[in-house]
Order: sequence, then structure tokens, then C-alpha cells
Amino acid sequence: MQKFNISFLPDKKKVFITEEVNLLQAAAEAGILVKGSCGGDGTCGRCKVIIKEGNYTTKQTGKLTKEQLAGGYVLACQTTAESDLVVEVPEASRLSEHQVLLEEETVGEAVSQTSVDPLFKKIKVELPEPSLTDSMDDIERLKMAVRKETGIENLRVSLNTVSNIPGILRKEKWKVTVSLADVLGYTEIAAVESGWDYQKYYGLAIDIGTTTIVVNLVDLESGQTIAQKGSYNQQAVYGDDIISRIVHATEEKNGMEDLRNAVLKSLNELISQLASENHIDINVINYAVCAGNTTMVHLFLGIDPKYIRLEPYTPAINIPEPIRAEEVGLQICKTAWVYCIPGIASYVGGDITSGAQVIGIDKTEKVTLFIDVGTNGEMVLGNQDWLMACACSAGPAFEGGGIKCGMRAMRGAIERLDVISDTLDVEYSTVGGAKPVGVCGSGLIDCIAGMHKAGIIDRTGQFSSNLTNQRIRNGDDGPEYVIVSKENSGNGQDIALSEVDIKNLIRSKGAVFAGIRTMLRKMDLPIEIIEEIIIAGGFGRHISIKDAISIGLLPDAEFEKYKYIGNSSVKGAKMVLLSKTARDEAVQLATKMTYLELSIGNDFMDEYVSALFIPHTDMTLFPSLSE
Amino acid sequence: MQKFNISFLPDKKKVFITEEVNLLQAAAEAGILVKGSCGGDGTCGRCKVIIKEGNYTTKQTGKLTKEQLAGGYVLACQTTAESDLVVEVPEASRLSEHQVLLEEETVGEAVSQTSVDPLFKKIKVELPEPSLTDSMDDIERLKMAVRKETGIENLRVSLNTVSNIPGILRKEKWKVTVSLADVLGYTEIAAVESGWDYQKYYGLAIDIGTTTIVVNLVDLESGQTIAQKGSYNQQAVYGDDIISRIVHATEEKNGMEDLRNAVLKSLNELISQLASENHIDINVINYAVCAGNTTMVHLFLGIDPKYIRLEPYTPAINIPEPIRAEEVGLQICKTAWVYCIPGIASYVGGDITSGAQVIGIDKTEKVTLFIDVGTNGEMVLGNQDWLMACACSAGPAFEGGGIKCGMRAMRGAIERLDVISDTLDVEYSTVGGAKPVGVCGSGLIDCIAGMHKAGIIDRTGQFSSNLTNQRIRNGDDGPEYVIVSKENSGNGQDIALSEVDIKNLIRSKGAVFAGIRTMLRKMDLPIEIIEEIIIAGGFGRHISIKDAISIGLLPDAEFEKYKYIGNSSVKGAKMVLLSKTARDEAVQLATKMTYLELSIGNDFMDEYVSALFIPHTDMTLFPSLSE
Repeated sequence: MQKFNISFLPDKKKVFITEEVNLLQAAAEAGILVKGSCGGDGTCGRCKVIIKEGNYTTKQTGKLTKEQLAGGYVLACQTTAESDLVVEVPEASRLSEHQVLLEEETVGEAVSQTSVDPLFKKIKVELPEPSLTDSMDDIERLKMAVRKETGIENLRVSLNTVSNIPGILRKEKWKVTVSLADVLGYTEIAAVESGWDYQKYYGLAIDIGTTTIVVNLVDLESGQTIAQKGSYNQQAVYGDDIISRIVHATEEKNGMEDLRNAVLKSLNELISQLASENHIDINVINYAVCAGNTTMVHLFLGIDPKYIRLEPYTPAINIPEPIRAEEVGLQICKTAWVYCIPGIASYVGGDITSGAQVIGIDKTEKVTLFIDVGTNGEMVLGNQDWLMACACSAGPAFEGGGIKCGMRAMRGAIERLDVISDTLDVEYSTVGGAKPVGVCGSGLIDCIAGMHKAGIIDRTGQFSSNLTNQRIRNGDDGPEYVIVSKENSGNGQDIALSEVDIKNLIRSKGAVFAGIRTMLRKMDLPIEIIEEIIIAGGFGRHISIKDAISIGLLPDAEFEKYKYIGNSSVKGAKMVLLSKTARDEAVQLATKMTYLELSIGNDFMDEYVSALFIPHTDMTLFPSLSE
Repeated sequence: MQKFNISFLPDKKKVFITEEVNLLQAAAEAGILVKGSCGGDGTCGRCKVIIKEGNYTTKQTGKLTKEQLAGGYVLACQTTAESDLVVEVPEASRLSEHQVLLEEETVGEAVSQTSVDPLFKKIKVELPEPSLTDSMDDIERLKMAVRKETGIENLRVSLNTVSNIPGILRKEKWKVTVSLADVLGYTEIAAVESGWDYQKYYGLAIDIGTTTIVVNLVDLESGQTIAQKGSYNQQAVYGDDIISRIVHATEEKNGMEDLRNAVLKSLNELISQLASENHIDINVINYAVCAGNTTMVHLFLGIDPKYIRLEPYTPAINIPEPIRAEEVGLQICKTAWVYCIPGIASYVGGDITSGAQVIGIDKTEKVTLFIDVGTNGEMVLGNQDWLMACACSAGPAFEGGGIKCGMRAMRGAIERLDVISDTLDVEYSTVGGAKPVGVCGSGLIDCIAGMHKAGIIDRTGQFSSNLTNQRIRNGDDGPEYVIVSKENSGNGQDIALSEVDIKNLIRSKGAVFAGIRTMLRKMDLPIEIIEEIIIAGGFGRHISIKDAISIGLLPDAEFEKYKYIGNSSVKGAKMVLLSKTARDEAVQLATKMTYLELSIGNDFMDEYVSALFIPHTDMTLFPSLSE
């Protein structure tokens, strides 16, 4: 088999590959993260690269324009080398093109109300000295002292720790610092240190999302977040959504390992940066709490996610035991425990439990709706008396997936937008005030609302045939509305929304609304019963509630009922990290929630079809729009 | 530094050593176990070897006769090479000269009364299939089925096991065999196997003694012992008693590792033999329960025993957690759990808890005395209402330690003996009916009783000055009594008991009796209160109760009150292996026993001094002897 040198620009990274390895794989090997939304099928067209030198074979996919073909563009996943190559990877094809936006630390109310009783802590103890009339062994003596200090009954010590204890106790004249780690069901005496002047110690609150990963470095004594970092989940090179990840994991050789390594690499890079930027040793990071959807948790823990994808969609595990950092591969203190917040079902994971925990949905009298729309759409409805959860296959449209001009809420994304009714011109604002390069979820909602209001599209999302305007034209996918022309855009390309895109978005919003209605129907409750609606995730950040209601995505409730909570997944992880009580409550919460599988019976389908209109077939559900 | 080849005969084993390595160390390196009772100090004189060829340096110790010196004998521990050497190791200097005698399997009553509910078992379960209306994850589904079958609430599954479960469940149509391991506080789902035709599975009951190690291979389903094996504890090359082992562990470089490796080697050799002789794979040995004294357990688990030896004699740990076989180094199924029965104090260990458990001392109304005289003398006194334990430094005299002609109850040991009053001749029987080579504990007791009765020694153990007989002579250590002359012995040497030996034995028996009396005094009870006396250990096997009473070793009680229990340490280990209830009770038992430290106050010293007579200064304690 022939082997070739591939040089990537502008990174100046080189790899030496065999002739059957495609350029997407070669880039991954070189450590360059190229978008691979479809998982290398050649259908998403996002892994565009430019061949600068050398001979190659590439399959035509129709995903490249004539100009691009002329400029040497190929899809990396469809291209193999026939000689040494020089390949340029444009910014737009990279996963790491922008930093993941992190919210300012606005710790949720529930968190600040909780006193700090972290899953890992250090305490100072003084032991009574042994004597000839007191033959108690060192470990029992230590346990007694810890018990007296903390009230904790069920204490264990691993054998590795035992060995050093007798020496330290005597050297320090029975005054020592003891590290305690909570391990669900018992507390581990994790270490015994000399004296009472101990080093600071930290924990991690982690959100493992399908697309992005966020890590908070938390001072476990004060409960304060010292720093936070986010990045892409490097699993994205194996596909954008959960299904393509599961397919890769179960059908490719070493697929599981690929995915596990990718998420670990993402996490360990963030951890290493957090540690070095804050001048702390990774060995003083002593606990990690992770929240993620069920598939992400399976892949992180190395558990086969195969049956999540196959009817009846059964996860291997919803409530994983804590595991040692060394065993799972997280590069913090080797003996640190890593705890994943329990999930509810295959498509309602620990990230949702985490969010439900943050908003305290199980402690309020008010009937509350919790919505987290990300790559999928997950919802919880209920209050202290009952709780129901469901996942509607909303798809990633509101994260920009499947929408030509769609993107996540990153620099240059149009996040708010107004269509001027008479001119059909557009007023917009972008994230970071940069030149526009695409439209993120909130912008897409505004755009549909505006296009509908202006009469550009009808209630089904179809373009009006009797409108002529320079912004409305026929594109590759049929009629489209030009939001920003290439002269004004940040990437030299038109930003336009086509009828195909709009239908996609309507399907997404219809699925969300149908999910809400199906849960209510199951409980035989009217939509007005909902007293509070809490929106989580990057999607909700700059959303216009008014526009979201007007397109029929969200229930027609008073604006005061709406609240935005941000990344509730990482917030819940932090809450659990800092409170044993919260951890116990999270387990109870996950167990208590009734999962509603929407694919059973006809309720959801009926609701979905009715919701494929702007805002809905049943206008009585949206009384404010008729006023 | 110079290096030399040392060849050992008749083993034909060679090692290449540097000039400063002594021949005792060289032999150990060659895998030849030479007796090293004193730990290489040159004081016990047991490591005699014969230099056949080559030049060497040796220190004179006075431990070799002129004939031996002329024959090329040296003490291995005092000798280093100056050229290549050929060294013969005589049988008598070897630790493995005889097989350790094992008792016939006479499972204690308490064991046979207990139904088999082992710490590891396999059960057949059938799970309800998941459906769209039943989103429970596989692990919770499995736990529910196990709970239904067994009633066990607290179930855990380690992550390594989780990964295979979804596949097996579906392949086997939800009918599987589940392995359950009890881990003190929770039950682990250790494995899930295909179908219901499972392989047999086994456990080990282990007694780790200072001198010998016994391993029982137990069928965990039937509760039957399949086979048992015993051998020397290879730690013996580092010294005979606990103190010299602790000194080696704490003062020699790699001392801890030496001792840990030695005991593991002993254990793993026995296990490997048991497995191959019984045609089973070591991987189907799924649980091990060990009983041993506190120092043995520390060394086995790799815990520093330093403070056991230093006042106030505090062990690092009395109640160790179960540990994985792989972690501890036991070569059975890697994930098998190894559980050590809890001890009470530095000199009353898990072997005593184990014995106390077997005799059910905590369940009887009768005031019971449990005596285990081995390398040390440990006793438990009490009943269901109160329990007290103590260790008297009896020393290893009754195991042959410190007695010139003393030996353990192995082939050729004189085990019973009568002194004919008028001729002072001796009638005896030996273990295995072989020619005599020494005297074991029961023989030594008989001998002192007989010598005293015949007037050879007085009540203090001193030789009578007005007796002349060919058997009484002046030896190297003063007056001695020849039991068997070299013409009739099995090793061509006289077997004789000197006054020094007798004083040694009186000190030992005095310590045991004083221990019993001190416990009684603590409770303010007379000696007659004792209703049952149970003797454990090889020492008690052929003991004459009559003679033991007559020298004042054992209390003057009716013979019917005495009972011999054999190796109660390994019996208790088996009992615990086969019953969770017994395991829980063993923990309670260890916690419940009050440890009496004999070195405090003057009670023990007073009693000890009073007991340094045959039978005692206070003859009212031995009414049957005055009749």
C-alpha cells in the first residue's frame, strides 16, 4: 500500500498516511478538527478543504459550487491522496473557528441558597492518643474522630490510603487534615495529610453536550467558580448528532474508542488549560460532577450506546456509579471520583435532571414547564406533586443544523432580526457586533416571525407567489429570502433563508409545541395551567419570547411567566458538586420523573401535524395573536 | 564488586551473587527455603549448610559442634563467598522438609447448621423485556430482577461489567445467570453470563499463620470443601516469630515487599496446585476469605505493621475492607473479592475472631474458654453476655521454638511420651510412626509431666541432684535428660531435654495459665466458673489433657469440659465464606470482644510468677492433683 505525506495549512502540520485514508481522517490524525456533521458521508458538505499541491481522487457530491470546484475545493471526507499533498483548511470548515460562548457566572438562586457541603472536602481532626488501655486500631480511631467532627456514619478507607496513615498520625502528634469524598452510599477517607495547614482543593462541574463541552473549575471550600472554559466536543468529527455518533460507535472498528478518546481529549484539554491558567496542579482537583445526555454519558464512560438508537430505545444505564478519574481517563487527581448525574431515559439524560434540579421543579407548587432545546428538544412538566419528561425530535434546526445559513450563537451570528414590512428590508444585530456570517436560533425565529408578518410566507411556510422584491429570488433549493447580501456579509456569501429551511424550522417548532401539548393531554390539563416556563440552553439566550410565541414555538403565556436559565446542565452539575443534599435530590428527581415516549399512540402525531402551521391550526391556543 | 556462582545441592540450582550477599539470602534467591528462625542473626543455628567446594568467609557463632565444623558445616546466614561455591543444603535445614499436616475435613457443628448463603453465588434470572411503555434502563431492569429473586436491596455494578450487559441480555432473550458478590454493605453484580447453564464456582478459605498456611478450596454451591493444602509460610526465611518479621518489614530495605511477596508466593503456589490437581481454572475461584493474626493480615495487605511492635501496640487496622484479588496479588479471578476476618488488637487477630465464631462463644450461656496456643498464646473467655480476649507472650516453645529438640507436629515428632518411674526409661509414639527426630508440643508436655512425676525435676523445673541414671547427664546447656539416644533416633543425634528447655516450657505454660487467671480476676470470677474449654491449633491435636493439667498449663477441670477443635482459623474462614450471616456476626464478634492488655498493672505479673511452678504455687487451684 502506498503512503503519502499530507501537509495542512496554515497549521503547518504533517501526517504520513496510507492511500485509503481520506483527508477528513488525515486532518483528525494531524489534530485539526474539521466539521463532519454527517459523519463522513459526503452529505453535509461542511468539510470543505482546498488542495494546494498534489494529485488526488475525489467523489463528486453536488455540495460544491462551480467557483469552489475551480478554486480547488474538495470535501475532505470524499478525497484520498495519489501523491504527497498540501491542503489548506479554511476557517469556515474548522470546528474551533470560534470560542464557545460562556455565560457570565450567574449562579442560579437555588445554588446560592444551598450552603456549601461539597462531595469532597478537607477537615481538621485531632485524635485521642492510643494507650495501653485503649487498643483501638488507627483506622477506627481516625473514623471515630471524623464521625465526631462531621456526624458521618458510613466511612470507608481504601487500602492504598491505610498504609500511610499510622506514620502520619504519629509524626503529626494526632492532628491531621482528612480528605473526605462522598461516593453515593458511603464516604471515603480519601487522604490523610500532615498538620492543619492544607492546600486549597477544587472540583469540576462539567457539561458534556453533543456539540459543546463546558467545564467550571470550582473552589470547593468557598463554592466559588474560579474559572470556566468551553470548547467543541471533538466527537463532532464523527458526526453532528447523537444518532451519527451511535452509528460510528457501534459500526466502525474502534468506534467506541474513537468517541471516548475524542470527548476525553476535549475535556482534558480544557482541564489542562484551566489548571495552568489558574496556576493549580491537576492533582488538587479532587472531584468531578458531569451532566450530559444519555448517549454522551455512555460514550464518556465507555458503555455501548447501541440500544439507545433501536426500538424500544433502552439505555444500558441511567444511574451510573461514581468512578475513579484514573479509570475513566479524566486527567485530574487519579483517585478523584467522577460522578455523572442520573438520566431518565435514552433521550432525556442527566443534563435534563441537572436542569430540573437547578430550577427546583420538584419543590414548587406552580406547574412549571422546563424546556431545553439544543441538538434535540427535551422538556419537563410538573411540580412538587407530579413530573413528566419527554424528548421531541426537534432536530438541530435551532442550533443551525440543516439550515443553510444556520449557525450556533457565535461571533457573527445574527441573533436578533426585524423584517421591515413595507420594504422587506432587514434590521439585525450580531453576536459580538461582527459582520454577519449566518443566523443563529433566536435570529431564525425572528426571521420566520417577520417573514410571516410581512406576508413573505403564508401559515404553512410557503413563499407568497404575488410578491416581488429584490430580496426574494429563486435559489438552488427553490424560493429564498436574502437576509444579507454577500457585499455586506462577513464571509463574502449571501445569507438567505429558503423555503426548505423554513419548512425545516416549522417542523422543529411543531415538534416542540406538540411535545408540550402531548404531556398536557396525558395529564388532561389545559395549556393555561402552566404557571412558569423556564428556558435553558444557548438557544434561549437572546430569544424574543414574543416572536417565539407568534410562530407557535412556545405557549401563548404572559411574558412574566417566562424565565431564562442559561446552561442549566453545568449549573446543576455545580450544585450537585457543592451539596450532598442536592446530589441525593438529583437521584430522587431522576427516579421520580415519568418518561413519556412520544412515539407511542397517535397523540403526538396528531399534535405535530396540527402544529405545522404558523402558529397552529387551532388559533384558540394563541388568543393573544387574535387580539 | 566481585560476583560468584553458587550451586546448591541436591537441588542443582544456581545463583550468581555479589560478594556481600550471604548464603541464606543466596538460597532464598535460588528458591530454596532454608530455616531462618532468628531472621539471620546467627543466634538460632538452624540454617546449617555444608560447603562442598570453594573458598568462603564465615563468622564463628558457637552453634556448630566440632564434628559439624570438621564436616564443612557453616551457618548460611554468617557465610559469604570468596570464590564460586558448591553448597549442600541438608534436609534438616529446610523449611519444606515435611508436608504440613492437614486434618481430615471435620467441619465444625456451627458450619453444618448454617445453610449455604455464600459471599459469592450465581443465580438464574429472567428479566421482563423492555418496551416503548417501559423505558427502564438495562441495569435497573437487571437489578429489579435480582432484587425480586433474592430480596437484596443494595446492588451495585462496576462499570467494566456494565458494558457487556446490554448485548448479553438481548442475545439470551433476557434469561441470564448473574454472579453476586457480597462486599460488606452492598452486593456487587460481578458478572452476567449467557444462559442458565453456568460453570461451577469456587471460593477459598485461607488461614495465614505465622508458620504455616492452609488453603481450603470450597465449592460455593454445595458448601463442600473440594480439597485442602497446607505449606510453610515462606516468610519464615525472614524469622520465625512475628517480632522478627516486623523488624524485617520495618528496618530492611524492601522489607515490606519481601514479606508480602513471600506470603503471596506461598498462597499462590498452594492455589495453583489446588486448581491444577482439581482440574479447575483459577478464574472460577471467585471469593477468598482469610483469617490470620494481625501482623500476618497487615503484611498480606501491604500495610506497615511497625506500631504493632511498639508500645502501646496499636495496629494500623483491625477491620479491613474487602479488596480485589488483583489488587492484593492473589492469583484467582482478578475481580474476585478478598476479605480478611476482622481482628481485635495487635496480638489478638482475625484468626481468633474466626475461632471464636466457629465455637459460637457469643451464642452460648456457658462460660467458655477458647485457647489457641501457637507461636503466641491467645485466649477468649466469656459467653453470650460478655467476652474478653487476651494474648499472653507464651512464645513458640510448644511449637518447638527455643527448645533444642523441639519441633512441630510433623513426621518423626514424638507426640506422646511416658517416663517409666523406676527405670527412667521412655515409651513414646511418633507422628507417622517414623523414627524420632524431635519432640512436638504434646510430647513436651508429657515429658515434663513424666519427669516431674518420676522426680527427675522438682516443682521449679530444676534437675534433682541426687539421681543418677544414664539418661541424665551434663550437656552443653547444663543438666539434660536423654529421651532417645542417637543410636535410636532418626537423625543420628541424641534427643534430649535440658533444664534450660524445661524452664522455657515452664515460662510458656505459666504465661498461658496466668493469662486465664488474669481474665478471671478482671471479671472477679473463680476458675470453677468455666464450663467449657476449647483448644484450637495443631498444638492441641494429641495433647494429654491429664498431663497438661498436671504441669499447670490448663485449668484443673473435668476432662468432659475439654474439646479439641483443630484449625479453627480456617474453619471460621470457611464458615464466613459460606454465610453472609456468619460474616456479619464475625464483625460484631470482633467489635464486641473486650481486649485485655496483660502488660498493664501487676495482676498478670503476679499470676505469672505464681505459675512458674509445677503445677502452681497455689495448689488449691489444682484440687485433683492433691487427691
